[in-house]
Amino acid sequence: MPVAMPLFEDDRGKLSFGETGAQLPFPPQRYFIVYEAEPDAVRGAHAHRSCSQFLIAVAGRVVVTTDDGADRLEHVLDRPDLGLHIPAGVWADQRYSDRAARLLVLASEAYDPAEYISDYDEFLQFKGLGQ
Amino acid sequence: MPVAMPLFEDDRGKLSFGETGAQLPFPPQRYFIVYEAEPDAVRGAHAHRSCSQFLIAVAGRVVVTTDDGADRLEHVLDRPDLGLHIPAGVWADQRYSDRAARLLVLASEAYDPAEYISDYDEFLQFKGLGQ
Repeated sequence: MPVAMPLFEDDRGKLSFGETGAQLPFPPQRYFIVYEAEPDAVRGAHAHRSCSQFLIAVAGRVVVTTDDGADRLEHVLDRPDLGLHIPAGVWADQRYSDRAARLLVLASEAYDPAEYISDYDEFLQFKGLGQ
Repeated sequence: MPVAMPLFEDDRGKLSFGETGAQLPFPPQRYFIVYEAEPDAVRGAHAHRSCSQFLIAVAGRVVVTTDDGADRLEHVLDRPDLGLHIPAGVWADQRYSDRAARLLVLASEAYDPAEYISDYDEFLQFKGLGQ
């Protein structure tokens, strides 16, 4: 699910981009930026029933753990030209290198608390993997 | 055209967001991130015939000059919870505080070089203000 984004560089600086239907798997209906996160805090720790997300560490390093109920993967996001697509139905959390790290999340849906799953047992039920 | 974005803060950090139809005036079809820009470089210096843009300084400070052919304004973007909407038909350039500054741009259209206007006289003609 990591996606290498196009990068243009010249003597004025760098530019990386993504377009819907090309690198971006959906048209974003929402963005959010997480910043000044405490380095020992775990953020996220939930899944989405229907919302897909695309994550980019715009500054610093963010370590993302994804868990589809069967496999747990760790992704290191440490450059603006690296995206991570997290489809709906995947549990994820994030850890920040320091307070200067800044994570951009593009989301396929507007905010709806009802489509969050914040209980891991409920997540396994949702995946058809519950007891 | 500056837009104050919602900000949530708790003991884990800060989160600012925007949603299409609320703070965001269009559904983005493209994003780009400018980073490691040379502080003495001027970027942008063009207008768009049809593409609207929404700018956020995710890190550092970016000074944006906008010019609609009649009025020239300077906007200081220095926090992730401050957006700047630049509609189509506005000339703009950007200056970066340092190489750590990072600008996120959400665009209403896919990239199309034909809708850029990079000549200021042509821009004035486009605005009906040419000689």
